[in-house]
Amino acid sequence: MYGLIGKMRAARGQRDAVMDLLRASTGALPGCLSYIIARDPADADAIWVTEVWTDAESHKASLQLPEVQAAIAKARPFIAGFEFQVETHPVGGFGLADAKTG
Amino acid sequence: MYGLIGKMRAARGQRDAVMDLLRASTGALPGCLSYIIARDPADADAIWVTEVWTDAESHKASLQLPEVQAAIAKARPFIAGFEFQVETHPVGGFGLADAKTG
Repeated sequence: MYGLIGKMRAARGQRDAVMDLLRASTGALPGCLSYIIARDPADADAIWVTEVWTDAESHKASLQLPEVQAAIAKARPFIAGFEFQVETHPVGGFGLADAKTG
Repeated sequence: MYGLIGKMRAARGQRDAVMDLLRASTGALPGCLSYIIARDPADADAIWVTEVWTDAESHKASLQLPEVQAAIAKARPFIAGFEFQVETHPVGGFGLADAKTG
């Protein structure tokens, strides 16, 4: 499995708008096992996104999907930057969805 | 919802042992919506754990469960330390399990 843990900074006051756009574009994408959007309670503009995919290729392919491209285009004006990102190799746990294929 | 993102460091060479113990103790704990264990591919002893709970209380209560206490006791000798931990407030996404009650 392939994972990402990232911290994104919304433009001042735009966190809820960015999170709404992220949530609207999050669904059963091919290869997606988990995609969780969270506020940072200690940092008013910060959003944490944790993702698990079957493999790096499915994550990369998702970025080319029309609905994801549209969400990225909508959210971009409200995003100030990406502060932190780490790739992980999830091995298991609880709460991983079944992957939709193809 | 209540979330935790943490980076743990295993004692040298003990990462797989720690991850096996974490996986064995991870199941449908009351209030747990997601608990994912991952290797850091760029850091040989590092483990990332991302968690989502219905609330902070259910997370806190889980630490008192006998099976969780037993797992903590078993894993402790193989854990060198905790390098990073952030609390989050997840708002949604994909792959959150249904919470087991009580």
